Amino acid sequence: MAWWNTHRDFKNSINTDINPDLASERKSPPFDVEKLTNILDGGIENTRVRRRVEASIHSDPVFSREDQYFLSSSETYEKGIQRSIHLKKKIEQLGWMKDGPEMKWLNRVLAGDIGFNVHTVFLNCINELGTDEQIAKWVPLAQNYNIIGTYAQTELGHGTYLRGLETTATFDMSTQEFLINTPKISAMKWWPGDLGRSATHALVLAQLYIKGKNYGMHPFLVQIRSLHDHSPLPGITVGDIGPKMGFAHVDNGYLFLRNIRIPLQNMLSRYSQVLPDGRYVKRGSEKINYFSMILVRVNMIGEVVVGTLTKACMIAIRYSVVRRQSEFKPGAAEAKILDYQTQQGKLLPQLATVYAFHFLCPYLLDYYNLVHHEIKSGNFKSLPELHALTAGMKALVTEYSTAGVEVCRRACGGHGYSMLSGLPSLYSYVLAACTYEGENTVLYLQTARYLVKCLAMGQSGQSLPQSVAYLTSALSRRCQARDKSDFLKTEIYLDAFEHRACRLIRGAASKVQALVHSGLEQYEAWNSTSVELLEASMAHCQYIIVKVFVDTVEKLNSDPGIHISLKRLCHLFALHWIRTNAGSFLHNEYISGNQLDMVTEIYLDLLLLLRKEAVVLVDAFDYTDEQLNSALGSYDGQVYQRLFEWAQKAPENHQVNSAYEKHMKPLFHSALSKL
Amino acid sequence: MAWWNTHRDFKNSINTDINPDLASERKSPPFDVEKLTNILDGGIENTRVRRRVEASIHSDPVFSREDQYFLSSSETYEKGIQRSIHLKKKIEQLGWMKDGPEMKWLNRVLAGDIGFNVHTVFLNCINELGTDEQIAKWVPLAQNYNIIGTYAQTELGHGTYLRGLETTATFDMSTQEFLINTPKISAMKWWPGDLGRSATHALVLAQLYIKGKNYGMHPFLVQIRSLHDHSPLPGITVGDIGPKMGFAHVDNGYLFLRNIRIPLQNMLSRYSQVLPDGRYVKRGSEKINYFSMILVRVNMIGEVVVGTLTKACMIAIRYSVVRRQSEFKPGAAEAKILDYQTQQGKLLPQLATVYAFHFLCPYLLDYYNLVHHEIKSGNFKSLPELHALTAGMKALVTEYSTAGVEVCRRACGGHGYSMLSGLPSLYSYVLAACTYEGENTVLYLQTARYLVKCLAMGQSGQSLPQSVAYLTSALSRRCQARDKSDFLKTEIYLDAFEHRACRLIRGAASKVQALVHSGLEQYEAWNSTSVELLEASMAHCQYIIVKVFVDTVEKLNSDPGIHISLKRLCHLFALHWIRTNAGSFLHNEYISGNQLDMVTEIYLDLLLLLRKEAVVLVDAFDYTDEQLNSALGSYDGQVYQRLFEWAQKAPENHQVNSAYEKHMKPLFHSALSKL
Repeated sequence: MAWWNTHRDFKNSINTDINPDLASERKSPPFDVEKLTNILDGGIENTRVRRRVEASIHSDPVFSREDQYFLSSSETYEKGIQRSIHLKKKIEQLGWMKDGPEMKWLNRVLAGDIGFNVHTVFLNCINELGTDEQIAKWVPLAQNYNIIGTYAQTELGHGTYLRGLETTATFDMSTQEFLINTPKISAMKWWPGDLGRSATHALVLAQLYIKGKNYGMHPFLVQIRSLHDHSPLPGITVGDIGPKMGFAHVDNGYLFLRNIRIPLQNMLSRYSQVLPDGRYVKRGSEKINYFSMILVRVNMIGEVVVGTLTKACMIAIRYSVVRRQSEFKPGAAEAKILDYQTQQGKLLPQLATVYAFHFLCPYLLDYYNLVHHEIKSGNFKSLPELHALTAGMKALVTEYSTAGVEVCRRACGGHGYSMLSGLPSLYSYVLAACTYEGENTVLYLQTARYLVKCLAMGQSGQSLPQSVAYLTSALSRRCQARDKSDFLKTEIYLDAFEHRACRLIRGAASKVQALVHSGLEQYEAWNSTSVELLEASMAHCQYIIVKVFVDTVEKLNSDPGIHISLKRLCHLFALHWIRTNAGSFLHNEYISGNQLDMVTEIYLDLLLLLRKEAVVLVDAFDYTDEQLNSALGSYDGQVYQRLFEWAQKAPENHQVNSAYEKHMKPLFHSALSKL
Repeated sequence: MAWWNTHRDFKNSINTDINPDLASERKSPPFDVEKLTNILDGGIENTRVRRRVEASIHSDPVFSREDQYFLSSSETYEKGIQRSIHLKKKIEQLGWMKDGPEMKWLNRVLAGDIGFNVHTVFLNCINELGTDEQIAKWVPLAQNYNIIGTYAQTELGHGTYLRGLETTATFDMSTQEFLINTPKISAMKWWPGDLGRSATHALVLAQLYIKGKNYGMHPFLVQIRSLHDHSPLPGITVGDIGPKMGFAHVDNGYLFLRNIRIPLQNMLSRYSQVLPDGRYVKRGSEKINYFSMILVRVNMIGEVVVGTLTKACMIAIRYSVVRRQSEFKPGAAEAKILDYQTQQGKLLPQLATVYAFHFLCPYLLDYYNLVHHEIKSGNFKSLPELHALTAGMKALVTEYSTAGVEVCRRACGGHGYSMLSGLPSLYSYVLAACTYEGENTVLYLQTARYLVKCLAMGQSGQSLPQSVAYLTSALSRRCQARDKSDFLKTEIYLDAFEHRACRLIRGAASKVQALVHSGLEQYEAWNSTSVELLEASMAHCQYIIVKVFVDTVEKLNSDPGIHISLKRLCHLFALHWIRTNAGSFLHNEYISGNQLDMVTEIYLDLLLLLRKEAVVLVDAFDYTDEQLNSALGSYDGQVYQRLFEWAQKAPENHQVNSAYEKHMKPLFHSALSKL
């Protein structure tokens, strides 16, 4: 098929040189890109380890993603399973330790395409909620994939609101068993990963009933498929919930349980136990368990969400200096599309967002570790703040990352619609994160509830945790910027974000209060204010993120060149959010129309400056071509050649076209006599 | 598999009654829903015809969409071909005339799932650009599907900027032929529909060269595949470009041409002809051809884009009164999610947008017909206005409809991620429209260029076309609203939109001028202002759309109940845009912060009022269950039952699980001894 080899005009395009349009962008970088890579990796040693992990994984054909876009969903699922099992062996062979430095890079390098993800949740839950005997029995089996478990919580009719779950576990004292039941169709377990086609066991979250009394949700270990032949056990109806927007490698499933009997020992009992005589015993605090869910959220922001936006940015920015379109200057060659201000206005704010979110992750993790340390010594006082912070951040980061990936995808024009660009998969992958691990609107409102509570505490004279202390501080009445360069002063825009968040939170809280005073029930007042509470919650998160970005850049002890670029990104990031949320800054004349015009001016200046550094600023993230898996985004910029080579691999180009045989052939044959 | 038939708890859930939670929403509608349906259809007779077409199509198993979400892309493609051929026969059998009343409903009823779409463009082009002899030769063949053609314009490296296309057609006088060539990889035809696996012919857009001189783009008829066996002809490399985000039913293709010789007669020559001696003759105006591209855009807005948003709204709103979540009132049953203000704030503005865009379509079509009439009598003066209007409207409507579909999808939580909800397919379908038929940013800037030109004309005293006459009108300095009810006066918010559009257009135009005065070239000044020009262009389109909505509702001679609801939708629509673009209304203190608070208050009041009518307001659009093809959105609201029934049909639930056989079985068997 390599017909262009013999076609003289193509002689020059089959090399693997860097596309000159991309090479020229890297010619005189304003800083040492490798040093920025080290900063982004969290140190030079991390970069080394990461590349070692990459070398091991990318050289292994089992992990090749070459055919990713051409597999059916069943093939994708099977590949995921194969990879998980292979990976386990590989890790043992390579001697990577469970808490070793290599492990933290695995997710990044594998780009999420492995199976048994919920099985890991199943395993962690046993470790955390099981007694020592339960751990000793189940954990080795699960670790060795001798059984595969799922975490069966979500039901067809019930998601985020856990107390609404309807599956029941009724204690039968006569046999010392629990009877697990799905009382109606909306109670069917629905969505759990690894359930549809893999799991042998399920950790079923169910309402515990003893002698007719409901004791709330508890976790029960239920075998669902035979270990002999994998068929569903009697009373079990289980299957795959069918096609989804993405996540073809995961077999999300449904599970219906009819009078399934499990022994007393199968309720995970570290924190609450049912005794043989039917007494219910609670011990210790479950808060620590709840706390580990926060870690899932923090890790997810870093590993899944921000990484995805980063990859989309790398692809779109590299493509935008290779793609040329339209006469820019009359008579000259077609311009690189990144030279258009509108393209800069799409992509460079996303690039700034990548850096902002990237630096947010260690901030969240550090704070998590601090609270973890406190909790270990029995001090739970920071837990509400940590919860509120991570809930809102999860919502905001997933929302903006999803929107950002789509901006990048669309900025690649028609080719961004091709799966071969890599962008549609990144989009359907990151999108899901807006819903799983807590639906975003619900999370924003949880943060709002905490903020309103803190405000009331502050107003009554109590001292407030650090991240919300500003709620009761005195507000400046006007932005102090006098000319556009003032908006390059971090204190100027930080004050603006603080002022706005504070105003919105106070406003929403006052409204709730006023409605209650006017006779509404608390819940009605809250609901009638929730659109404004949501906006207030977002404003708070935005303030924190801008602040963390500013603080991180200020503290960085790096090359002057790197420092200048990062400051520009930080400014652009903050000013982009001021522009796109202008209404709430102008509202009470904190910022004037004149000042907003200055913001726009300096924003456009920054676009032009960052345009020149855009390619090296994405290069620094150092995702490999294998990880990007994009015909548009590879390091060498040979976009058109790669699109063509990859397209030829599509199964459609190698199959008999049965639509021709069945439907078109007779029609075409009758044309023969007429032409 | 119907195990729930025998399971006593399910006895009650297998009926096909309307879900009571949905039935209660329809109990006392504030107006006669059928009458609103007639208005939306454009008259009672239209509703009748539509339902007749629906009955014919939905009763035909070839058009069943039951398996839509379970087909591979090849199967989807084949189904599309089969349907197109079947449809042609069916139309003949039913005696539907080409311009008959049934045809205009076909697209809606078939929901876009048919093949040979670009073949129709190929056919239309021959009709418009061919000579009478060319039409006589090719059109009957194409009409009968004896040949299938594609319109091969877009190239791998060239999209919206047509002058940049690189394919060449060189006249060889010695043989009286054209030589068609793809000079390099970026010139390969890429994306044309029906090309990848179907087309026998291509209308190739190429640069015409005669004796070394370039005469620009012209259309050439090239046979690409054998009519005997469908194999590519010598010199032709053709194939499918591979998987995309959506449009699996279309075989978008690539085409490489090496020294393909076609006779002189195969250049479509109605408007320009190459004579045997190499002379080039131009005749008549091609503007009329350009004009027909505008019709494609206008029809696309109505048939593809707005319909898709409407369906998404129907699904999400119906689901939101069936889905219950969380204790709303403490101790009470879980609440319908549409009772949450945040859910109303997501969905009801989308519903209002559906109505706004729905009423925009006849406005655009009427204006198109008016201009068509003028052009027929040789008067081209309105063409620039029509072009600018439709370009901007295409960009805005596709952008907002895409965003709206995604809001609806996400508002359905986890189930919105399932293909069975219908929402992911609607999303990937509407999304593409942001790019095809003109990339949105390019289109917005074309409109901006027209606006800036008109402003200059107006300022020099010339009279302006109707839709832009406001550009030179005197502006009121302040919004006149004194209390929140004033924002229910259409003149109040129309003035706000007019003021804002005018200010932004004038501001951007002044900046371009100032930059030119300061020494920048025109093209640089334009590029340096393009972010602001884009915003100005959108503000203009928004003003027109709000105005059309207001005018339409005012002119409607309908029941008082319908009138009240439509006015509410119109208010909500306008106020939603004021809220979400608040910065540009507050900027020069046209609207004060206080007034914006009134907007929010009345906006929230409207949400509550429209909440009660939401279901009947979507019902009125009367899309059938077959058209929605959504487990969440059916008329009866039996959401959970349908999700479960459909999921069971997934091929994954009927295939041997080879991942188990190959990878898991040995691991599980070794657990047997341990459990």
